[in-house]
Amino acid sequence: MPRVVVHVMPKPEILDPQGKAVASALPRLGFEGVASVRQGKRFELELAGPADDAALAMIRQAAETLLSNPVIEDVVQIEVLEEEGA
Amino acid sequence: MPRVVVHVMPKPEILDPQGKAVASALPRLGFEGVASVRQGKRFELELAGPADDAALAMIRQAAETLLSNPVIEDVVQIEVLEEEGA
Repeated sequence: MPRVVVHVMPKPEILDPQGKAVASALPRLGFEGVASVRQGKRFELELAGPADDAALAMIRQAAETLLSNPVIEDVVQIEVLEEEGA
Repeated sequence: MPRVVVHVMPKPEILDPQGKAVASALPRLGFEGVASVRQGKRFELELAGPADDAALAMIRQAAETLLSNPVIEDVVQIEVLEEEGA
């Protein structure tokens, strides 16, 4: 069954306390050279049918209403993964 | 400055209550045809220097220790984004 990955990130103008916490933890743990970190979400959706235009349009609408909060987040990418063993 | 994206997903054998909640919310909202959902994390790291082998090795180590919990999560991908306007 095809899998679709939806990538959601906080909008650039929105503060991202999780990302900030990670960014300040990195040097404490000895990882230098990272200027900033933003943390978002990655959803893997397994489809029951083919990843055709209708399915992707439905997923885009779901991504923009259920998977992300459009006030503070952007759907940055929707990608169809190769079907394994298909 | 180059940006590196780290993708983290719950291991396949680990229950994913967030993903399950999303999967059961989809049909209630009229989105049919999604068999299952897994929810993971996406980190965007902005580097202070070039994305060379040393920087990527450091990021891989950080990804496997700080950005993910290796008991329940896998680092599924580390990708270098094109430098914008470079």
